[in-house]
Amino acid sequence: MKILIAQLNPIVGDIDGNTAKILEGIDHAREKGADLVIFPELSLCGYPPEDLVFHRSFIESMELHLERIINGSKGMSVVVGLVRRNFEEGEKPLFNSAAVIHDRHLLGFQDKQLLPTYDVFDERRYFEPGKESKIWKLNGKKVGLIICEDIWQHAGYSDYTRYTRDPVLALVEERPDLLLNISASPYQLQKPDLRVDVCAKASRTLKCPTLMCCQVGANGQIVFDGYSVYVNKKGELCQLGKGFMEDEILVDLDAEIAPIPFPYEAHSNLLDALILGVKDYFAKHGFERALLGLSGGIDSALVAYIAAKALTPERVTGVSMPSRYTTDQSKSDAKVFAETLGIHYLEIPIKEPFDTFLNLLEPQFEGKESDVTEENLQARIRGVILMALSNKHGYIVLSTGNKSEVALGFSTLYGDMCGGLGVIGDVTKTRVYDLCRHINQIEKKEVILNSIIEKPPSAELRPDQIDLDSLPEYGVVDNVLEGYVENYLSIDEIAEKYKIPLKQVLELIQRIHAAEYKRRQGPPILRVSKKSFGVGRRYPIVQKWF
Amino acid sequence: MKILIAQLNPIVGDIDGNTAKILEGIDHAREKGADLVIFPELSLCGYPPEDLVFHRSFIESMELHLERIINGSKGMSVVVGLVRRNFEEGEKPLFNSAAVIHDRHLLGFQDKQLLPTYDVFDERRYFEPGKESKIWKLNGKKVGLIICEDIWQHAGYSDYTRYTRDPVLALVEERPDLLLNISASPYQLQKPDLRVDVCAKASRTLKCPTLMCCQVGANGQIVFDGYSVYVNKKGELCQLGKGFMEDEILVDLDAEIAPIPFPYEAHSNLLDALILGVKDYFAKHGFERALLGLSGGIDSALVAYIAAKALTPERVTGVSMPSRYTTDQSKSDAKVFAETLGIHYLEIPIKEPFDTFLNLLEPQFEGKESDVTEENLQARIRGVILMALSNKHGYIVLSTGNKSEVALGFSTLYGDMCGGLGVIGDVTKTRVYDLCRHINQIEKKEVILNSIIEKPPSAELRPDQIDLDSLPEYGVVDNVLEGYVENYLSIDEIAEKYKIPLKQVLELIQRIHAAEYKRRQGPPILRVSKKSFGVGRRYPIVQKWF
Repeated sequence: MKILIAQLNPIVGDIDGNTAKILEGIDHAREKGADLVIFPELSLCGYPPEDLVFHRSFIESMELHLERIINGSKGMSVVVGLVRRNFEEGEKPLFNSAAVIHDRHLLGFQDKQLLPTYDVFDERRYFEPGKESKIWKLNGKKVGLIICEDIWQHAGYSDYTRYTRDPVLALVEERPDLLLNISASPYQLQKPDLRVDVCAKASRTLKCPTLMCCQVGANGQIVFDGYSVYVNKKGELCQLGKGFMEDEILVDLDAEIAPIPFPYEAHSNLLDALILGVKDYFAKHGFERALLGLSGGIDSALVAYIAAKALTPERVTGVSMPSRYTTDQSKSDAKVFAETLGIHYLEIPIKEPFDTFLNLLEPQFEGKESDVTEENLQARIRGVILMALSNKHGYIVLSTGNKSEVALGFSTLYGDMCGGLGVIGDVTKTRVYDLCRHINQIEKKEVILNSIIEKPPSAELRPDQIDLDSLPEYGVVDNVLEGYVENYLSIDEIAEKYKIPLKQVLELIQRIHAAEYKRRQGPPILRVSKKSFGVGRRYPIVQKWF
Repeated sequence: MKILIAQLNPIVGDIDGNTAKILEGIDHAREKGADLVIFPELSLCGYPPEDLVFHRSFIESMELHLERIINGSKGMSVVVGLVRRNFEEGEKPLFNSAAVIHDRHLLGFQDKQLLPTYDVFDERRYFEPGKESKIWKLNGKKVGLIICEDIWQHAGYSDYTRYTRDPVLALVEERPDLLLNISASPYQLQKPDLRVDVCAKASRTLKCPTLMCCQVGANGQIVFDGYSVYVNKKGELCQLGKGFMEDEILVDLDAEIAPIPFPYEAHSNLLDALILGVKDYFAKHGFERALLGLSGGIDSALVAYIAAKALTPERVTGVSMPSRYTTDQSKSDAKVFAETLGIHYLEIPIKEPFDTFLNLLEPQFEGKESDVTEENLQARIRGVILMALSNKHGYIVLSTGNKSEVALGFSTLYGDMCGGLGVIGDVTKTRVYDLCRHINQIEKKEVILNSIIEKPPSAELRPDQIDLDSLPEYGVVDNVLEGYVENYLSIDEIAEKYKIPLKQVLELIQRIHAAEYKRRQGPPILRVSKKSFGVGRRYPIVQKWF
């Protein structure tokens, strides 16, 4: 039996366009001699569709397009993910489901049984859990079919949730010849190889091969990395889809295939995820050109590099907006870097508007010391300039704040937090450095200038300012982020694990919560870690716990 | 038997402060001769605690404070809402629960059975559903106790969710003498009387009185209106807690009480909800003073009035920021209105910074027509001024956009959308007019000047601009909002119901979805309708459905 795993990049809500891709995938499968072709979870509408599923017309459109897919399935078996109505009793009127089709006939549906409702997932908001793991007869084989989360419980990976059912174990007595899993499983640092492990555990339990078909592409803040999986019945990885792009993997179950290793490259993966995030944000929106402030610092350099890779350098413009506190080194670094990268470059000094505002506000500021107000004012003037260029020329502004800054609110709301997308808002400062060094390594030249990498981080908003004036070292901040935000450790546990004074841990946690209101109005952030400040984290703005 | 319904306003996360309020409530109950005192759902931690419940220390703190409450319950029965750990099998490790205490002994817990996971509710993200409706023996009576949503299914009110269990019906065979319900039920237009109806239905089914203890106060974007309920066994409303403030209602089950009507006043209720929303946002944050742009238009006038009522006029400052397009009438209206209301008033013209930016950006704008860029630029200059005053003097900026504008994105991101709180972001333009007329009626004077109410709405960002240049009449917009956003009607249904041309309905819906990205970065909005653009509505920014 031959199976094509169609690793698609659907657009959320583009039911017509996704159907075209699915029909094309079926044709490719037929041409390649496959008996069965499988598509990712909810591939008909794209994952995650969020509240769009509340619109009756959205569900009806899926029903109509399913008919087109059924009609296009001549001589083939097809598994495709979609939302279907629940006609039985149950809390919710919809299922997250898979249609099983054979040769122009709908054989039935397999509904998702375990509905993740934690972190970025809200499936209990929309869906009723499926009640059983069915067995499907396809090409004379007994095939088990489960959806995404359904396979994870069995491997013992759970995030806050301990399901009381195990859809893999439920299939044991049926002795399936093959297990299929269709997924929309988000990228996060170090997750791709976990999926292989999860498939391997199911294979060993069921003593049959497992095929996992993964969605690829970024939808909003969530990046899906692809890497669809074929493991044999011994639990060995035999074939793997490409990372961060569409792919078709033809699996011949009868062929003897030597096991392969998982090519995990933490830095490359992270970089690819960010590039894909920017690329799809623009492509799926229909946007053409990106704009960002180039300070001569490391964060904006990294974002510019990512944008240039995602969109080509010709479609990226960097704007240097020096203030009276910007050093000559930073000005020169910004310019030289932009030239090296080949992006467009503008210089618009902010001295004049800054003076105008100070003059205008003098009566209100009289008798008050210079403070963070004047720093924020400069950042907001830059925001106004970027947004004016964006409005006039149709650029999308990219925000350049990193996760460590976003965490502590070391940024100006409506200032440097302006932008349609927070490209590195889930990348800690430590990782920003790692990525920049990695880029110079793979590019085999100094794309990110050494002078940019080596200068002490500074917002350059007052004389001789450096970040260390107001922040502990970024390594300390990033340890607290890992302990507190990603792993919910207690203050004591963090102090002990990372050898940080208790008082400093407490101060940093208080700063994290005090910045909740800023983040609420910040740009959407590409999620690449276990816990992002973008989607998947919901804290009250008004609270007295911290 | 006498019962005190303690209608509290807890602060989210303030477990210590909330415990003090609960202990005080127990003392009051004892003084008043009550046998039992009941507190709202999750009153120990405040509702909604969101992801704070993921912190082990947060749950442990509740356990410790429950001990204090138990120790303080001498001679009394007490029912108090809290989060407790789930030690049994189950998907989630926590319950939304009620502790039942009698005379310094914990009798046990009643867990919430129906977990709302729709609109503003995310309870399946955190909690495991309770498995049964228990009967409690208190003062020789058989008492049923259920939590918030548990009572709604029985009355047939459901929002997207059809629960398969009915915790009220589950009590029928036990023949309870009394039903208690502890709630955190958000205010929304026309909801208070629904709760009486829901209690009445339970009373008639169980043939016993029902007492509903409601949380009051605003927590973040959600306003809780109070109005706790006592209905007798015939389902007649006998006593009602005050709206929009803390209250204690002493119910004597043995007294004959004549039924009372529900004093529903749509406009007063809405106004009270908004005032409470602002008041608690400031009080619970520890903020003192509010700042807002006063355009001389109706939206900013309404917000200024609400702020003055919530904080007193002395703590509110209005800033007129006239541009070259601001009419003399608007300038004068803003000033006279501020004087009438008694708030502080500043005038800061934006001509100079506008000229400076135009001059600075001339090389970039060369050869381009004047367009929305110049309009947004003025709005953003105003944002910069408000935020500079906020930073320097510690004001919180209030955003003044109404729901109709927020819906269509008829506003400038980082400009007039600046602010810590969107006060009327869930109030349609139609209702803004209604409220202003209502205010003049209750104040018995022209607080909101007639010239403000009567002028045609305009952003005054280009010569002779009025809203009707770019928008249909607000009545049309507001009908589409009701049909599409609140009730998920199809385009055809909206066109037919409200007699609006199909093409216009479609255009407006497209504008609503096109503004998703702006709203994502807008200020938190006080929710007062069935479906707000603030919490409870989750649409993808990047999608191709519309």
